[in-house]
Amino acid sequence: MTSPDRWPEIRGIAYGGDYTPEQWPREVWHEDVALMREAGVNLVSVGIFAWALIETSEGVFDFTWLDELLDLLHENGISVDLGTPTASPPAWFFANHPDARVVSRDGVTMGFGARGMASHASPAYREAIVRIASALAERYGSHPAVVMWHVHNEYGVPVGEDYSEQSVRAFRGWLREKYATLDGLNAAWGTSFWGQRYGEWDHVGAPAAAPSVVNPAQRLDFARFTDAQLRACFVAERDAIRAHATQPITTNFMANQSWTTDLWAWAREVDIVSDDHYLWAADPEGEIGLAIAADLSRSVGGGTPWILMEHSTSAVNWQPRNVAKRPGEMARNSLAHLARGADAILFFQWRASRSGAEKFHSAMIPHAGTSSRVWREVVELGDALERLEEVRGSRVAADVAILWDFESFWAQDLEWRPSVDVSHADQIRAFYERLWRDGITVDFALPGQDLSAYKLVVAPAQYLLSVADAANLTRYVEAGGTLVVSFFSAIVDENDAVHAGGFVAPLRDALGVVVEEFLPLREGARHTVEWAGSGSTSTLVADAWQEDLVLHGAEVKATYVDGPGAGKAAITRHAHGTGHGWYISTRLDAASLGTVMSDVYADAGVAPSGHPEGLEVVVRRGDDADYAIAINHRDDDASLAASGVELLTGADVDGELLVPAGGVAVVRTPHTP
Amino acid sequence: MTSPDRWPEIRGIAYGGDYTPEQWPREVWHEDVALMREAGVNLVSVGIFAWALIETSEGVFDFTWLDELLDLLHENGISVDLGTPTASPPAWFFANHPDARVVSRDGVTMGFGARGMASHASPAYREAIVRIASALAERYGSHPAVVMWHVHNEYGVPVGEDYSEQSVRAFRGWLREKYATLDGLNAAWGTSFWGQRYGEWDHVGAPAAAPSVVNPAQRLDFARFTDAQLRACFVAERDAIRAHATQPITTNFMANQSWTTDLWAWAREVDIVSDDHYLWAADPEGEIGLAIAADLSRSVGGGTPWILMEHSTSAVNWQPRNVAKRPGEMARNSLAHLARGADAILFFQWRASRSGAEKFHSAMIPHAGTSSRVWREVVELGDALERLEEVRGSRVAADVAILWDFESFWAQDLEWRPSVDVSHADQIRAFYERLWRDGITVDFALPGQDLSAYKLVVAPAQYLLSVADAANLTRYVEAGGTLVVSFFSAIVDENDAVHAGGFVAPLRDALGVVVEEFLPLREGARHTVEWAGSGSTSTLVADAWQEDLVLHGAEVKATYVDGPGAGKAAITRHAHGTGHGWYISTRLDAASLGTVMSDVYADAGVAPSGHPEGLEVVVRRGDDADYAIAINHRDDDASLAASGVELLTGADVDGELLVPAGGVAVVRTPHTP
Amino acid sequence: MTSPDRWPEIRGIAYGGDYTPEQWPREVWHEDVALMREAGVNLVSVGIFAWALIETSEGVFDFTWLDELLDLLHENGISVDLGTPTASPPAWFFANHPDARVVSRDGVTMGFGARGMASHASPAYREAIVRIASALAERYGSHPAVVMWHVHNEYGVPVGEDYSEQSVRAFRGWLREKYATLDGLNAAWGTSFWGQRYGEWDHVGAPAAAPSVVNPAQRLDFARFTDAQLRACFVAERDAIRAHATQPITTNFMANQSWTTDLWAWAREVDIVSDDHYLWAADPEGEIGLAIAADLSRSVGGGTPWILMEHSTSAVNWQPRNVAKRPGEMARNSLAHLARGADAILFFQWRASRSGAEKFHSAMIPHAGTSSRVWREVVELGDALERLEEVRGSRVAADVAILWDFESFWAQDLEWRPSVDVSHADQIRAFYERLWRDGITVDFALPGQDLSAYKLVVAPAQYLLSVADAANLTRYVEAGGTLVVSFFSAIVDENDAVHAGGFVAPLRDALGVVVEEFLPLREGARHTVEWAGSGSTSTLVADAWQEDLVLHGAEVKATYVDGPGAGKAAITRHAHGTGHGWYISTRLDAASLGTVMSDVYADAGVAPSGHPEGLEVVVRRGDDADYAIAINHRDDDASLAASGVELLTGADVDGELLVPAGGVAVVRTPHTP
Repeated sequence: MTSPDRWPEIRGIAYGGDYTPEQWPREVWHEDVALMREAGVNLVSVGIFAWALIETSEGVFDFTWLDELLDLLHENGISVDLGTPTASPPAWFFANHPDARVVSRDGVTMGFGARGMASHASPAYREAIVRIASALAERYGSHPAVVMWHVHNEYGVPVGEDYSEQSVRAFRGWLREKYATLDGLNAAWGTSFWGQRYGEWDHVGAPAAAPSVVNPAQRLDFARFTDAQLRACFVAERDAIRAHATQPITTNFMANQSWTTDLWAWAREVDIVSDDHYLWAADPEGEIGLAIAADLSRSVGGGTPWILMEHSTSAVNWQPRNVAKRPGEMARNSLAHLARGADAILFFQWRASRSGAEKFHSAMIPHAGTSSRVWREVVELGDALERLEEVRGSRVAADVAILWDFESFWAQDLEWRPSVDVSHADQIRAFYERLWRDGITVDFALPGQDLSAYKLVVAPAQYLLSVADAANLTRYVEAGGTLVVSFFSAIVDENDAVHAGGFVAPLRDALGVVVEEFLPLREGARHTVEWAGSGSTSTLVADAWQEDLVLHGAEVKATYVDGPGAGKAAITRHAHGTGHGWYISTRLDAASLGTVMSDVYADAGVAPSGHPEGLEVVVRRGDDADYAIAINHRDDDASLAASGVELLTGADVDGELLVPAGGVAVVRTPHTP
Repeated sequence: MTSPDRWPEIRGIAYGGDYTPEQWPREVWHEDVALMREAGVNLVSVGIFAWALIETSEGVFDFTWLDELLDLLHENGISVDLGTPTASPPAWFFANHPDARVVSRDGVTMGFGARGMASHASPAYREAIVRIASALAERYGSHPAVVMWHVHNEYGVPVGEDYSEQSVRAFRGWLREKYATLDGLNAAWGTSFWGQRYGEWDHVGAPAAAPSVVNPAQRLDFARFTDAQLRACFVAERDAIRAHATQPITTNFMANQSWTTDLWAWAREVDIVSDDHYLWAADPEGEIGLAIAADLSRSVGGGTPWILMEHSTSAVNWQPRNVAKRPGEMARNSLAHLARGADAILFFQWRASRSGAEKFHSAMIPHAGTSSRVWREVVELGDALERLEEVRGSRVAADVAILWDFESFWAQDLEWRPSVDVSHADQIRAFYERLWRDGITVDFALPGQDLSAYKLVVAPAQYLLSVADAANLTRYVEAGGTLVVSFFSAIVDENDAVHAGGFVAPLRDALGVVVEEFLPLREGARHTVEWAGSGSTSTLVADAWQEDLVLHGAEVKATYVDGPGAGKAAITRHAHGTGHGWYISTRLDAASLGTVMSDVYADAGVAPSGHPEGLEVVVRRGDDADYAIAINHRDDDASLAASGVELLTGADVDGELLVPAGGVAVVRTPHTP
Repeated sequence: MTSPDRWPEIRGIAYGGDYTPEQWPREVWHEDVALMREAGVNLVSVGIFAWALIETSEGVFDFTWLDELLDLLHENGISVDLGTPTASPPAWFFANHPDARVVSRDGVTMGFGARGMASHASPAYREAIVRIASALAERYGSHPAVVMWHVHNEYGVPVGEDYSEQSVRAFRGWLREKYATLDGLNAAWGTSFWGQRYGEWDHVGAPAAAPSVVNPAQRLDFARFTDAQLRACFVAERDAIRAHATQPITTNFMANQSWTTDLWAWAREVDIVSDDHYLWAADPEGEIGLAIAADLSRSVGGGTPWILMEHSTSAVNWQPRNVAKRPGEMARNSLAHLARGADAILFFQWRASRSGAEKFHSAMIPHAGTSSRVWREVVELGDALERLEEVRGSRVAADVAILWDFESFWAQDLEWRPSVDVSHADQIRAFYERLWRDGITVDFALPGQDLSAYKLVVAPAQYLLSVADAANLTRYVEAGGTLVVSFFSAIVDENDAVHAGGFVAPLRDALGVVVEEFLPLREGARHTVEWAGSGSTSTLVADAWQEDLVLHGAEVKATYVDGPGAGKAAITRHAHGTGHGWYISTRLDAASLGTVMSDVYADAGVAPSGHPEGLEVVVRRGDDADYAIAINHRDDDASLAASGVELLTGADVDGELLVPAGGVAVVRTPHTP
């Protein structure tokens, strides 16, 4: 678990971005530091893709330029987050170690020329990353500019899984360690199906291309192995740095953008959680995905402040249509991250690259230079963050948890599921979005963790749920909690094997139902559900999925009107112990889910915020004061009920503050214990 | 040709399914057999994916569990269809013989981990399948439980074609045998085109990935070769079994679901035809595809009873959206197969697997267990089949044949055809569907076979039609038959070479037309055809395709109103000898095709059944009685004109029987000679 | 540059096509030449895919059949364009030189069986093509039938790029020659980005499959290298022929159908430009794409007459839906090519092939034979061309140029551009189409060439524009020219590096604007632009893209009403020197572009023709007379204002000629100097 005392030694909210001066002549360096000071930049990340410039050939180091750079930054009061460049080994590495190249599932060897990602299992790679990390730490561990270490870059992307010979061997070793015996592996993988029983360890391989769908438990283990391998690479670098340096060490996650690394496990290894986040341009409400990512970053770190290591000042370059941010949007995004616990707001990158694959990615200094909207807003944001210095270290509190288990993602994303319309990510988004619109702040949580602090726990399409975790959820309900479970939850155990007793059986006590049969619908089919709960409507709209429920004590709250389940229970509520378990067996549209959740909130004792929809308000609680951070996504001004001082303007607020259309406000209010 | 005396020694209609007790502990075995008895199960298929459990390493056999299993089943009166497990060789096989792995067209080597399909050309594989088949037959050839042998599983899926070195060598040998000389091959393949002439046998390869479209005659021969290789594997196993056993031998086809094996040729090699059939969930009228598969299974076996080796009690797991069967649907499906000649109704599988790629495939015992709708219906179906014992052995008679030639499928599916909108399968479905809605029972037939028993023969998009087969069709018309030919028929000969004289030239005498030019339409274009035949409409609706017809004596029955063929003949009728040849040069919608077929029926002396649409009625004729099997797909009750005894209820029927909505009925009526 | 004196020695307009008698028995040869005479065919291309029949094994030649063929053609007065068959090496070549096979980006080795395209870098291939070209030239250099040489076939298709070992080595050599030092390469490619710096030449490879997007400058250089390699192959053959023969030498381009070869550079190497063109069937106005291809073919050759080496009499076979040409369409297509400078109208191919991948490609003699519409029209066209003999050698003059730079295509087609909706080809089509509808004849031009002859120059999405070329355009405006530049122009330099100063900066003086930021729109978004110019409308409709313009002196002609740029300048006009620079920052629909171009025409002093839309009229200017060639694409007759003699009918024209619906006319008018 990260601890707050590991925060980098830096004043106030950290502000800055990735800095790649190696792409520019020396004269630009001096212009850069002057502009950084103008913008209030106090932290930059350097060296992330500079391996070839530091270790110019195998074992030969040249620190000249980096010495000069760190000194220059330090002289100008700009702290450094020093990266290890191991996400992209140099051309010489692949030339010297061609077998360290990643191989795809289809057997394509991935060459050099993009980011030069290497096989996590390659001994040569393992040796090389320790060598470069050690060399950097040895040289700069005591450099006064360096306040943090940034290992590698976005583990798991652009590729995670590796099907090279070296990876296959490592996988076999990992399996031997996990299962000890082949009988154990055969049982876990269910190899009696399709005649896959292994009689020799050497016959076990990676789940590469095959004539049909590959054993799902094997693929799930390969996902676990890949995650563990990547983490072992991180740990090797981290420990190499620790031998020479004392600054906190992080690596940048991709929360809610990549699902290949188990961030709960990673958060235990880093000193500080840091995260990269980019809006998905096709989504007109990208701020909701942002909020998910931010809440997840905070949650995996146990609620401690985290670092927004990368986001963009405007458009990115790798999406089909890279929509530019509109005036004020960068500030709204930045403050939304801050509202959800980020105490550092950094960008990729400081200055837009003229060359290479990402030249159309926006930057703090765009191609248009400093006479640009983006630069003006960058300066304004730096100014705003200075005014928010006191917010640093305060915490976000949530009454509601949404379950998020990476293993369930991995399992559910495999082939041959009952319907392509069911997605873990989509269901998480649907429930999160409902809570977001209702102004309710959310933590993410593991199904096996202590949930007693939450009034409400939501399990959206939690396909993989172990018996132990299900028991934990049941105890939570028994003790008075309110649990909402959506369809396609509690289907399989940790080996992707269907639970004994059938679908949802492990939650039968908590929910008072089990599922006799899935009833996936044809493409585009919609159906109607008759609602027996409170609210103004008696009809809900849904699609994609129905189920044939068997009641074991639950009360029917809604019934299918049409479709294959017509006449049967669609939504149920069950009293168990002193709590309640709700089960929603279909995919409701947003309004219908709102109707249902109103009754759920009542059970849980949770209340919507009452803010106008689109006025996003999150409270951070400090030792001496609370901070209501309001982001107005609306096209008109919105009223926020608050009293205190608005920190960005310094204005007193007495009961109501008008947050302008597209604007942000941070109100210091009295401390709530 | 299969012969009725090869039916397994079993009482009544066979009922049961694939049984994989190797996936379960011993205590479940005993529960299984008890439940089989409850459900009336009298036949189970075992061992199909059990190679690794029987031959635990190369040449080392362990029959203990199988001995125990067969004894247990026998003690409980359940007969066994014993499978050879050769569709999925064990991990040790691939480890010992890595060159036996299948290679895809793009050069990807298909590894172990799914179904471990091996190269049909691998000598090691050929040796191994004979070894295991012999060992099983030697041990169980006299076991009283074993009433049938089930070789391999679904030849041709998940992969058929193999581009490995071994396969290329075998292909070369197959070609030498077929063509004797390179001149013969060069002529057949038309290698003067694009400079492909071969001067050495060793230069001839498989039609793998190439810079452009590969020689179509080469690809057609590779399809033939693949089919022949797979069949040679079957024959090798069959003969190995016959050396030790006398029970009938089958292998399960995939009629109308896979087109890679020539079922007419396969049917000549098996003792009994058996077929697997799964509904295509996206099709709301999946029962029509089912009927095609069933009629094809019956037809390739020459009309003798066949075995429905696999179908599903409810949803499958490998489609995008796996729709569950609704109450009664499993029985309707089962009886529809029986109506079309199946005397065995079996499922994949007995008990749903907890692990592996198909855990979401329904089963006779679903994950929900025996307190489930599915199980209740399984028991009911077993009961119903017992009441139908006397139907066994009766035959289906048809007045109409639709041509079905696998070589035409293979040729038409190759690249660079005039329009992607033209599909052999779609055209077969369109004509079959019309006849199905009109209540007319259909056989499938080869274009070269004796067709004199049929009043009407339909050739839908019979792209590849040899001169000899065209002559056979012409003789059929001459002798009084009615022939309907759709557009894109009789285009190429057996080498995919355009017929001398142009498109449709070989059928010119029969049809009185040839096609001067194809007129494919742009995507989505529809057009109108003026109809000069009888019926209530004078306007037909069509799309996708027109042609520029040249009349050689035919009468114009319809004319293009618009589109590139405007003003020209669209549909013609030609008197030849004492019969008639109809030609339909465009793709009509269902209603328009109905209008045209009414006049065709009149020529042929065929009459629609007059049953309400959606009441599917097929008659099986026995030695002493006929059986009208009625399946009501409608949402309301439907009246069936019949007199006799309804066998499921035992009720007397006097002139009319009301078949309930979604229900089935089987009426014994007096024998029609 | 081609020179008119290199035209083959042949009378009048050349007429004929590809002739592949090797696919037919001898008796057909004699029928062929008789029919050629009937149709007025005077030129056929032979030998293009006949390598295996000429060099039957490595180094062993058999000229018997070709001797016979050339003599037969000569005896019948039919001239020969003799092909070198190097686009498809024989089977023996690949068997003897397996390492000469092309490898795809994903590492798939492309085998024999289609067109046997070989690696351009293979020494064995280079040696073999020189050997066969020399042998042919030595034997037939003095044959009286041979009037032209046709090297290879359609360089760049079906494959251009090759990732084989041999190609990688050659690429490295090409780079060393281009950059001399690794520092030069590292700078040009911007290898500091993503840590791609090279320290050894041997580490540099081809831009094959990699974990993420590969360096775009590397890919751009690989495209240049591929083009250069293919051209080197051509030059090797050309020079081998020249050692023995004096006839002009060509190779057939694929203008506006393939973009992989830089036709400006190729045109400098051939004696005569020749081009293949096929309609894109899905486009209901394929004649516009045809006109682009024809104008480009003329333009790359500097305006000299060119050869339409291949087009089709009716449908092709390789598109999804191969629409047949309607009566008269083949003549319209042929005359449209002639109108735009083609003095030879040839087809692929003379007689439809019975076998192979292209058997459904139309031909001069279709499968239906000579009693067919196609054949009748072929004979009519031959007759028409004879009447147009005097047109030969006349020239097309244009006042307007559209820029066309293959390097910009290559660069813009790479990954990770701001929006997938922006395409160089689409923007060229949009502007060309506008000019075509307005009846304005267009040349294509390089941005760096002398443009002073043009009143108007259009730069559609000219993404890659070097500083030098931008300066050339600026001088053009300064000197009084009118320049129209669309969005996404002048973004990067020749290394795909963003211009210093930002987007469009090199054209700032000419246009009076730069672009601060791109504003790509979400899929399907449309927006409105308020137009301040002349014309009947004040509102324009646009989609896909907006920009944030910064004015540097330009006048605002239109403003964004909605979308992210609302209120900002959308279209500008700038006076520079004595000319004007227009900038259009969004994608206008066709009508809106028409409104804008009206004002542009006024600036340029260019006038729409006033012909009814769909009556395509192009004037060819001869030494003694001009020729107005009119093609009526309309469904009704159209009036052409002209005086002179209509050459096809011989009729006098006095002020007006009615061109019939679907018809063509060629009017000889007095010479305009």
